[in-house]
Amino acid sequence: MAFLNLFDQRKLWELAKKIPLEPVLEQKSIFDALGLVCAEDVVAPEDVPPKARSEVDGYAVRSRDVKGASVERPSLLTCVGSIAVDEVPQFELNAGECAYIPTGGILPTGADAVVMIEFVEESGNYVEVFKPVAPLENVIPPGEDMALGDVVVKRGQRITPQVIGLLSYLGRLQVQAFKPFRVFVAATGNEIVEPNQVPRLGQYRDANSFTVLTMLKEKGFDAQRGAIVPDELSSIREVINKAAQNYDAVVLTGGSSAGIRDLVVRAVEEEGGTVLAHGFTIKPGKPTIIGIIKDKLFVGLPGHPMSCFVSAGLILMPLLKKLQGEDVKPTLLLKARLRTAVFSRIGVEEWIPVRLRYEEELWAEPVFTKSGMVSSMVRNEGFLRVPPECEGLEPGEVVEVLLL
Amino acid sequence: MAFLNLFDQRKLWELAKKIPLEPVLEQKSIFDALGLVCAEDVVAPEDVPPKARSEVDGYAVRSRDVKGASVERPSLLTCVGSIAVDEVPQFELNAGECAYIPTGGILPTGADAVVMIEFVEESGNYVEVFKPVAPLENVIPPGEDMALGDVVVKRGQRITPQVIGLLSYLGRLQVQAFKPFRVFVAATGNEIVEPNQVPRLGQYRDANSFTVLTMLKEKGFDAQRGAIVPDELSSIREVINKAAQNYDAVVLTGGSSAGIRDLVVRAVEEEGGTVLAHGFTIKPGKPTIIGIIKDKLFVGLPGHPMSCFVSAGLILMPLLKKLQGEDVKPTLLLKARLRTAVFSRIGVEEWIPVRLRYEEELWAEPVFTKSGMVSSMVRNEGFLRVPPECEGLEPGEVVEVLLL
Repeated sequence: MAFLNLFDQRKLWELAKKIPLEPVLEQKSIFDALGLVCAEDVVAPEDVPPKARSEVDGYAVRSRDVKGASVERPSLLTCVGSIAVDEVPQFELNAGECAYIPTGGILPTGADAVVMIEFVEESGNYVEVFKPVAPLENVIPPGEDMALGDVVVKRGQRITPQVIGLLSYLGRLQVQAFKPFRVFVAATGNEIVEPNQVPRLGQYRDANSFTVLTMLKEKGFDAQRGAIVPDELSSIREVINKAAQNYDAVVLTGGSSAGIRDLVVRAVEEEGGTVLAHGFTIKPGKPTIIGIIKDKLFVGLPGHPMSCFVSAGLILMPLLKKLQGEDVKPTLLLKARLRTAVFSRIGVEEWIPVRLRYEEELWAEPVFTKSGMVSSMVRNEGFLRVPPECEGLEPGEVVEVLLL
Repeated sequence: MAFLNLFDQRKLWELAKKIPLEPVLEQKSIFDALGLVCAEDVVAPEDVPPKARSEVDGYAVRSRDVKGASVERPSLLTCVGSIAVDEVPQFELNAGECAYIPTGGILPTGADAVVMIEFVEESGNYVEVFKPVAPLENVIPPGEDMALGDVVVKRGQRITPQVIGLLSYLGRLQVQAFKPFRVFVAATGNEIVEPNQVPRLGQYRDANSFTVLTMLKEKGFDAQRGAIVPDELSSIREVINKAAQNYDAVVLTGGSSAGIRDLVVRAVEEEGGTVLAHGFTIKPGKPTIIGIIKDKLFVGLPGHPMSCFVSAGLILMPLLKKLQGEDVKPTLLLKARLRTAVFSRIGVEEWIPVRLRYEEELWAEPVFTKSGMVSSMVRNEGFLRVPPECEGLEPGEVVEVLLL
């Protein structure tokens, strides 16, 4: 049972290695694959383009024929044809000849460049060219876009709209994808009630499990929510035991007080599971539990809504993505200028909620909040990072902001 | 028919004002509302919390009783009770008294602060406190999270997982949302074939309409794709006429060559539509057409895959979001350091595809590409912005990168 010293992704990937979950593959139509993760290296099945293509509307030429051409001394060429965009030219270009070619058109044999339409003047069968072109100018040679065998979509890459466009272009209508993990989410807490109930004083409706459930769904996981679990060892044991049999990952939210956290840890261990991390030195998000139960992932998220949200974004989501087969990229941080001073504790990586404002440059304005507040989850637009070695930041300093 | 001078969002919003599309509202369950846009100002129906709550595990105290407390000179208090998290304390705290309180617990009358469990020592009925607390320390007073009537989710705000969590917390199970626009997408071009066809030399499978279709679906639009449209005035007229009767927006991709673009413009006008913008001074993305047909939005996107993608991301998507009712935020640009020099033309806002690398800081590495290449749509990780007034950028300069 480790208390992780410093939150960074390498630590998280080391932790991931201990979790015996294996990605599962499935064949998918590319038109149903948005948001999934590609499970194979997709290679180009042929040279693209197969023949040299024009990038512009203009005239296919032999570049040496227009060497030194200028407005004052244009090169005069004979136009020997007009190429349609979907046609293979059946003629050859000889010295002093040119042919009209549209964007995407295939170059005739003999031509090695295209002069843009803007730089010619047509008169009858003749074309005056006012500008020289280098060999291959305005041309995509065979295989320059993709060469036969090039890996064009990598295993582990997320299937974005552009990937789907590319696969469609290649005629790859099916793709191996990683099957989204089944994730079970439930809230714990005697004080938590369902959203359709009217809480008594001292009770609160569940926010956390719905936030996390929806974050998971948004990223393509097959997430289901269970009923609220009372703070009793036997109830928690029963729920995680059953969920671990039916899901790839079991997530409990809540348990912000130390007593309940201990109960969750005990439940995992009494069900034969292992707790790998009992907390992270990040704030908010510290009391996050990572464990294994019946060879499935167990994650216990904090009960404070902001803590739960940050922890789900910084720990749960990257961990699940990684285990499911995604090549998770380092999180990108925005640079912004700090509006007001912030203070922080040494040894803790702190994420301070901020709003973002544009006034010539990007400003980060810390949002006053207490960790128990629900509304700040929505009020903030990003999280300012205060590194563990830093005691605080001054107004005007350039800081890093995470968008979750 | 205007040729827009400079691409910025204000220009786009001015254009949006001329398009007579009106947002439509619908009532949605919050659990089906992810990715939709909120169409009402949601207000807090009561003070949250309704009574002062503790943010931590500890002891509820009267702050003046622990004034000056230290490890050397602890304050000694009598513990008069233990508050359960879901209970309203039935007793009052008098001078010199304290009570155990868990995170989220309601403060007893008389208490005005909470001392964290770390700073006390319990012995029998007595508690030694080693640290003073200020009034309201570790406490959320009534209404501090949300006060009755506070707008907590704004009209025009996108419904994120956190918004769903918050609405659940408030017991707001239904919400007014903007109904996603129905968007029709089709590719034009005699040389374009369906992805399940084997192209002859000179033909190419459709990438663009699938990229755009999936971008739209990803953002929650109700998008449908039509068959490929031949480059003939009558075919284009027929397709856009029919689509404008059944959809809120009609998008055609393709027409990268000037001739086809003119055909599309003519088709819109001959069907009684108006072309509002015939091009933008951005690169790639220049030959983008914006128009109105039968009071619906018409957008003609360029045929080069990269152009089409950038234009869809920078023009089509923000325009549709705005018209549908979303309060569209300015696009966030990342700061990165440029790896190699880039050159650009004055007067054009150029977006250069880059890969991003981390080496202590974020580096942007321009991707060599020609506009006709399909693979670069997937190879790039962002777009470096070269402002219209700039002729080029030097290696090492700090530049702005767009993530589409």
